[in-house]
Amino acid sequence: MLNTLIVGASGYTGAELAAYLQQHPHVNLSRLMVSAQSADAGKCFSELYPQYRGLVDLPLEPMVDVAKAAENIDIVFLATAHEVSHDIAPVFLEQGCVVFDLSGAYRVQNKHFYQQYYGFEHKNTDWLSQAVYGLAEWNADMISQAQLIAVPGCYPTVSQLSLKPLVEAGFLDTAQWPVINATSGVSGAGRKASLTSSFCEVSLQPYGVFTHRHQPEIATHLGINVIFTPHLGNFARGILATITCKLKTGVTQEDVRQVFEDAYQDKPLVRVYEKGLPALKAVVGTAFCDIGFAQQGEHLIVVGVEDNLLKGAAAQAVQCMNIRFGFDETESLI
Amino acid sequence: MLNTLIVGASGYTGAELAAYLQQHPHVNLSRLMVSAQSADAGKCFSELYPQYRGLVDLPLEPMVDVAKAAENIDIVFLATAHEVSHDIAPVFLEQGCVVFDLSGAYRVQNKHFYQQYYGFEHKNTDWLSQAVYGLAEWNADMISQAQLIAVPGCYPTVSQLSLKPLVEAGFLDTAQWPVINATSGVSGAGRKASLTSSFCEVSLQPYGVFTHRHQPEIATHLGINVIFTPHLGNFARGILATITCKLKTGVTQEDVRQVFEDAYQDKPLVRVYEKGLPALKAVVGTAFCDIGFAQQGEHLIVVGVEDNLLKGAAAQAVQCMNIRFGFDETESLI
Amino acid sequence: MLNTLIVGASGYTGAELAAYLQQHPHVNLSRLMVSAQSADAGKCFSELYPQYRGLVDLPLEPMVDVAKAAENIDIVFLATAHEVSHDIAPVFLEQGCVVFDLSGAYRVQNKHFYQQYYGFEHKNTDWLSQAVYGLAEWNADMISQAQLIAVPGCYPTVSQLSLKPLVEAGFLDTAQWPVINATSGVSGAGRKASLTSSFCEVSLQPYGVFTHRHQPEIATHLGINVIFTPHLGNFARGILATITCKLKTGVTQEDVRQVFEDAYQDKPLVRVYEKGLPALKAVVGTAFCDIGFAQQGEHLIVVGVEDNLLKGAAAQAVQCMNIRFGFDETESLI
Amino acid sequence: MLNTLIVGASGYTGAELAAYLQQHPHVNLSRLMVSAQSADAGKCFSELYPQYRGLVDLPLEPMVDVAKAAENIDIVFLATAHEVSHDIAPVFLEQGCVVFDLSGAYRVQNKHFYQQYYGFEHKNTDWLSQAVYGLAEWNADMISQAQLIAVPGCYPTVSQLSLKPLVEAGFLDTAQWPVINATSGVSGAGRKASLTSSFCEVSLQPYGVFTHRHQPEIATHLGINVIFTPHLGNFARGILATITCKLKTGVTQEDVRQVFEDAYQDKPLVRVYEKGLPALKAVVGTAFCDIGFAQQGEHLIVVGVEDNLLKGAAAQAVQCMNIRFGFDETESLI
Repeated sequence: MLNTLIVGASGYTGAELAAYLQQHPHVNLSRLMVSAQSADAGKCFSELYPQYRGLVDLPLEPMVDVAKAAENIDIVFLATAHEVSHDIAPVFLEQGCVVFDLSGAYRVQNKHFYQQYYGFEHKNTDWLSQAVYGLAEWNADMISQAQLIAVPGCYPTVSQLSLKPLVEAGFLDTAQWPVINATSGVSGAGRKASLTSSFCEVSLQPYGVFTHRHQPEIATHLGINVIFTPHLGNFARGILATITCKLKTGVTQEDVRQVFEDAYQDKPLVRVYEKGLPALKAVVGTAFCDIGFAQQGEHLIVVGVEDNLLKGAAAQAVQCMNIRFGFDETESLI
Repeated sequence: MLNTLIVGASGYTGAELAAYLQQHPHVNLSRLMVSAQSADAGKCFSELYPQYRGLVDLPLEPMVDVAKAAENIDIVFLATAHEVSHDIAPVFLEQGCVVFDLSGAYRVQNKHFYQQYYGFEHKNTDWLSQAVYGLAEWNADMISQAQLIAVPGCYPTVSQLSLKPLVEAGFLDTAQWPVINATSGVSGAGRKASLTSSFCEVSLQPYGVFTHRHQPEIATHLGINVIFTPHLGNFARGILATITCKLKTGVTQEDVRQVFEDAYQDKPLVRVYEKGLPALKAVVGTAFCDIGFAQQGEHLIVVGVEDNLLKGAAAQAVQCMNIRFGFDETESLI
Repeated sequence: MLNTLIVGASGYTGAELAAYLQQHPHVNLSRLMVSAQSADAGKCFSELYPQYRGLVDLPLEPMVDVAKAAENIDIVFLATAHEVSHDIAPVFLEQGCVVFDLSGAYRVQNKHFYQQYYGFEHKNTDWLSQAVYGLAEWNADMISQAQLIAVPGCYPTVSQLSLKPLVEAGFLDTAQWPVINATSGVSGAGRKASLTSSFCEVSLQPYGVFTHRHQPEIATHLGINVIFTPHLGNFARGILATITCKLKTGVTQEDVRQVFEDAYQDKPLVRVYEKGLPALKAVVGTAFCDIGFAQQGEHLIVVGVEDNLLKGAAAQAVQCMNIRFGFDETESLI
Repeated sequence: MLNTLIVGASGYTGAELAAYLQQHPHVNLSRLMVSAQSADAGKCFSELYPQYRGLVDLPLEPMVDVAKAAENIDIVFLATAHEVSHDIAPVFLEQGCVVFDLSGAYRVQNKHFYQQYYGFEHKNTDWLSQAVYGLAEWNADMISQAQLIAVPGCYPTVSQLSLKPLVEAGFLDTAQWPVINATSGVSGAGRKASLTSSFCEVSLQPYGVFTHRHQPEIATHLGINVIFTPHLGNFARGILATITCKLKTGVTQEDVRQVFEDAYQDKPLVRVYEKGLPALKAVVGTAFCDIGFAQQGEHLIVVGVEDNLLKGAAAQAVQCMNIRFGFDETESLI
């Protein structure tokens, strides 16, 4: 049994991690931590998440001394702010922990990216160069040997899973940038007091148009340009991405079907639809990413859905852990 | 044309007041004000409420000098915090303004009430003694001559409109306290960043059980004891109150119907159902309070619904203004 | 491994049963059936419930010959209409199956009840007299020996769990009937095309006032009179019941706490709150019933919450199966 | 005062028409009609729409004899099924009524369109050739002289208002088809019992991809090809359309701003944002269409929002009536 620690356990992603790990047969959910400044420090986890009362009643310990927090811990999940992850991941790594970072701090191998999109200078470039991008269905070999796994963002996960088979096959006419229109639930904004996330204020709307950090994350890892337009939806959980792209002349519906089948037939957490397009409800509360597509001439529309907190965050992190430690890939996830 | 000022115009109730007054043929919507400390001070009203873009584009002026704010103003609506209303109402009153206070600061003629339920000492007891409780259907005569009208709370409005005909008729066996179970939309908590009002956190639940300030407001003005149990509902607007009470022996369904008809047949904003019980949607977005009832033996269930921001606040305030100045009671309201 | 059959697997409750049984280590989910007239007959289960794609892909077989359906089946769950359960339960029972009936057909040991509240004459009174009411926390001994278990209704489950400790202790002044105000999610109306359940029509409202079938089910099994007022809420799942009752003189808060603790301390699926009252979100998606209470003088308010499809239906049915066959009571449920 | 008749007044669009006409100073809301087969025939309008109790209490008369229905009627609104409008519009027209048809039956001047997209043969080609497409901001001159106005569909209204200034200016690189991703509220499906529109089933999802009737309506009237991907959203009302298009080289942000300003500066019901993008809540419950845009290099994203039942249907119909009869364009609308 390996000992696991979740830092940032008071947030929505941290809570989902706790739920998965608590029922995992091969690991202990050893400790939950939050920022020492957090108003939740010292509270019981199930006070914040009453559905876990009696199931996960660990305290939310204030993180005072990072090195001390690493004692007796084999695996760390960082569900923390980008800069916090940037700062504390190396401490855990140097103590020998395997770190799954759910922030954006180690996702892109270009330190200038952080200055531009996250507003801070990346100072841990050695660790950055060793970080493996945890897109589980595509990077399993590297994940299985990494010490630092940068779990992809929620939008990038569904976007890449939906486009990568086409990119790899060279099917896209990339002169015309794929248009990714995605709508996310409010939980994507995290658990905090905010007028924007307030019940009476939430309303379907685009945000971060042409400026969202996930655009370069997607483009970098896919290796093509994309237009990415995120929206806030009036629901709590899930992301639906409708992706419009142009195929090279001659690519048939059967060709498309085939590359998706080849990519995912052995991947238990991606479900490709033979016909029809997925609805959000197909994945909310599950660890799956579902993908469907429709074609008309050279135009292809791919629709991908996932639960932003699960396959878009906590479930993919646990999937990476399962891969890293040789457990069944879906252990505790389905 | 009378000049009106709304203080606290950035909040949900203030915004509804602005919408009503803007279309009122006999008054000018002269100025909108907010606390000088408010982050909204200086913004345009329709920046906060984009639905009114082009309709109400007044600035939200910071309230720096109350006496100066009263200049050229005939009518003031205070959609402000209780203590702010307590403090500033007298300044406007002394300048000759007619004041409609939507806070709780002048609703109960017992200064000890404020210490116990609102946590502050009432120092303007002269004005308190002159304040008229603006339950429009019942206090029209007094409202028409008052300078300070204390507009009732949202829960008290629907609760009293639903119970008062029975109380006045002496139909209730008051040994058994009426049970008022009410559920309010999230807008009742006001426009502010708060984890409790956050989209992902809102969930049907009781709150303020046995301790809510509206219990004594209801009980005092009805003159009977009641059990009042408010709930937060997962919708933006509206209150539904289900009231279970015990009738004195011999009171018939026809008796009940008759007292409601007598009470409200000439009251355009209260709609009594001859059969069936109201749903929330009957009143959301309207100035109406709808009431229905069902009887079995000595048990009577009265169901009242209203929009908490309208008949429960802004619409009743405008209705009081209409009564006070001799306009048609429903002017700008339906 | 015991073989299980779900009849009525296309409905919301049937679907939850399928999800539980599919992951149960001691039973096989052998077959899913629907009415031969159902438009869903012949479809794949996960076509209706895409979240279970890859997890439960059994066909929804049309039920043509009941006796034949019983072949090789040890356990039957009837998530069927009341009259269908009335008719087919005996066929399964005579073939030796253990039957868990989630309809109302065998819940009350008084055949006149069915004529009055369900509109049909009960003709299987022998089986009715042998049926055990599956309120799991209170009737475990009888459940463990029964062949026909009548799983309680959703409202009756949460209402009885909330009141029974008080009734058994003799704490209630029953001259004043407890007032049960409960609000249920729309899934309680079942999976069917209906204007009432339509997205644009749903709005908080009372229904079935003084006439709902669950009132006599609750009153009969508790042995006291109650006023039961159900409401339709604008959410998909869950029931919150706010119960106002009068205590006998001298019953203290500590007395109340004690009887709840005694009743449920060994019951893993009922969580009693030492302080505070539960919100709906504490139980949605879980098999728990959470209970809290607040007292003021002789007035006691008990608030109980459950997921109407789970502890109010499918989870309690599986809990009963676990008890009946000696499995761990919470197997597959938490 | 002109006499108006609404056919199909039981539906959501018909109800909004009734509300507008009831408060219009220059017309009488004379009669409301529904199909003779409708279960609502004979009911009172406010029985279906309780918010209008006391405001619109007209009966929903069964339409038995169309010619007779036209007696004494000056203006007819057809909020009816496409084939019904196709059949009955000529009868009203021949009696001299001015007809505003909210169905798709007279929107496209190509009779083959109807066979392909609506599944019926258009037999009233004379009237079809006289019909004027009621896109109010662009066709006012023709509307002012027409007897038959085909009010545009909901998606086509917001799509065309958002794209037409760019098309007219010749700014688009039309080799790359604009991508219209739009999400509509459930009310777009109409008022009827349907599993798809059921509260528990609704979930964000695309539908009608590459096959929706509104694609050719948009493309025909704009005169360019477009990719149109509609989605069902989990809200009652409103449409948000996110439109991604490619500008010709050299078109600047200022150029774009200018053509939108020129197009709509005198159009009171279209609000163009100088900065920022609209949220759905800016227009729900209003007669406005709000439009914003963001540009990056040659890529332009235009976001348009409207209330699908109002500017997307009833409000635009009334706006057309106002134009046709020389009333103020926004009479009864704002």
